[in-house]
Amino acid sequence: MPLTLATEQTVFDDALQIAIDSKTKPLGSLGRIEDLAMQIARIQGVLNPCAETCSLTIFAADHGLAASGVSAFPQDVTRAMVHNFLAGGAAANVFAKSLNVTVQVVDAGIAGGRIQHCDLIDHHIAPGTQNAIEQPAMTIAECDQALEAGFLIGRQIDSDVACFGEMGIGNTSSASLVSAKILGNEIVNLVGRGTGLDQDGLTRKQTLLTQAADRTPALLAPKAALVEYGGFEIAMMAGAMIGASRRRRIVTIDGFIASAAALAARALAPGCETAFVYAHVSAESGHRLLLDALDAKPLLELDMRLGEGTGAVLAWPLIKAAAAMLSDMATFESAQVSAQIEDKNA
Amino acid sequence: MPLTLATEQTVFDDALQIAIDSKTKPLGSLGRIEDLAMQIARIQGVLNPCAETCSLTIFAADHGLAASGVSAFPQDVTRAMVHNFLAGGAAANVFAKSLNVTVQVVDAGIAGGRIQHCDLIDHHIAPGTQNAIEQPAMTIAECDQALEAGFLIGRQIDSDVACFGEMGIGNTSSASLVSAKILGNEIVNLVGRGTGLDQDGLTRKQTLLTQAADRTPALLAPKAALVEYGGFEIAMMAGAMIGASRRRRIVTIDGFIASAAALAARALAPGCETAFVYAHVSAESGHRLLLDALDAKPLLELDMRLGEGTGAVLAWPLIKAAAAMLSDMATFESAQVSAQIEDKNA
Repeated sequence: MPLTLATEQTVFDDALQIAIDSKTKPLGSLGRIEDLAMQIARIQGVLNPCAETCSLTIFAADHGLAASGVSAFPQDVTRAMVHNFLAGGAAANVFAKSLNVTVQVVDAGIAGGRIQHCDLIDHHIAPGTQNAIEQPAMTIAECDQALEAGFLIGRQIDSDVACFGEMGIGNTSSASLVSAKILGNEIVNLVGRGTGLDQDGLTRKQTLLTQAADRTPALLAPKAALVEYGGFEIAMMAGAMIGASRRRRIVTIDGFIASAAALAARALAPGCETAFVYAHVSAESGHRLLLDALDAKPLLELDMRLGEGTGAVLAWPLIKAAAAMLSDMATFESAQVSAQIEDKNA
Repeated sequence: MPLTLATEQTVFDDALQIAIDSKTKPLGSLGRIEDLAMQIARIQGVLNPCAETCSLTIFAADHGLAASGVSAFPQDVTRAMVHNFLAGGAAANVFAKSLNVTVQVVDAGIAGGRIQHCDLIDHHIAPGTQNAIEQPAMTIAECDQALEAGFLIGRQIDSDVACFGEMGIGNTSSASLVSAKILGNEIVNLVGRGTGLDQDGLTRKQTLLTQAADRTPALLAPKAALVEYGGFEIAMMAGAMIGASRRRRIVTIDGFIASAAALAARALAPGCETAFVYAHVSAESGHRLLLDALDAKPLLELDMRLGEGTGAVLAWPLIKAAAAMLSDMATFESAQVSAQIEDKNA
């Protein structure tokens, strides 16, 4: 009997559910770890998935709108933090080292002179975007270049689990604008304090981003949203999510800015989102709205609002354990646990 | 100037806050990971804490009240699962192996003949408790024996992080009764479906546990609550939590049953709870009430309801990362991140 694509999926899913329910535990008692195991098995297309290795790729770029004062920090912090990543001293590095995750850093378009460092991956598009409050952030050609570079980076990831992080002063503003335009939602619903604005700063940011949003129609196609409001790191991350998904990697989505990239990736390449595991609900207001639109229920909620991939890295041990559950846990049969348990589970 | 104990703590806490705020990140942007890092530093009494090693100790015992049908599973599942733990096939084993956690299993009082296995730690009190629905579960001497054995096990734990798990058919009933009596709360507020009761089973369990609770006054001293309703594994785990706390281990509290043990430990040895990190909100109804009474806000919420220490083990990478944040992350000074950032953080 020839299998259609639909029956193939049903046959696989049924076998997967039987595999999980045969494990020595009451039915469903591992809750979301069971759901996660199913998703991972589907991504890899096997009943004994593997999530033994994990990498973090951090995309860094600058934003023209930072000059308008939408962030608590000056633009040159992007550059300083890239040096910090390369030296291994940032939160993302320390979490990654602690949990055995490799880190690579990509210059997607940092302002100022080019950073010379043997470990920095060079996909520099331009020294920062234009100021999106007044004009398109990038050209269509720049956007394509960022998406394609990201796609190739994603395709080349060798680890089972691919975490993506970002650094770019002003990029919560960019992420808010891109998301609002792809969703056709009011910008004010997606604006928050970023990494540390006070009330006056937030009010100013809301005013500026409303001005930026008013430049274009309420709803934009995903690429138009990236051209008008994107950051190079956001576009490149979206490309990387698509590329890693095509390579059947478990793509772990960090916080607010990564979710905006995920939204763009899903809109640009429908279906790639089956590979997405949402890691963390950020303290950034607007993230829940974005997650609801993505139908996403992140694994962690730790009141973090740092980005860099910190949330994604902290979620990876859960992914690793979920894969191990499916691949390594005893079944009632293999453990010879008494038939009564099986009866009770039936 | 001589320091009092109170000023010592203030001096230490101030230094700790300065250490966290000097890290290269916006103030407070790591949310609960920062709170966790502070707690770990206080437990170890150092500004550069270490959570590089983790162990799981699983206490197993049987419960007389299982004969009354309060569980979805027959009593001999306890024994079968202990064999499964010893063979490395249970969920707790697989999670532990995946995350590099060592496992030890303790016979605190399993029913049936003694299990002969070189890896099983023998603190067998009796072959299960008496049926607490009708009479005290154990004698005062048995309770003391369980607490003392646990205390010594806890004292001997060498890992930085100590996770405790349990196995014992009927032990959500025991945990509900012990907690209700220590808190002076109505038993019905603390009864749930355990590992898999249906509605009829839950109604039956509520009736039986109300009958059990009515045997004694609404409020009991912690040891009396353990004597009347405890399991050997719950009493032994409470002792182990006290012992590990005295040794300045980071004591990681699993789900509903471990929280009942934590409640007893705190009542028996006030102050030991400063070492407790709550890992997981169980799907077991009643756990939230118990957590509120403990003033606990667990790190994870994954709809699990298995016990065995599974939740505690899954939380340990967060603890490891939190310690690494404080010990290994660059400061603004060490990273030479520009003075502007420091000004913004000031």
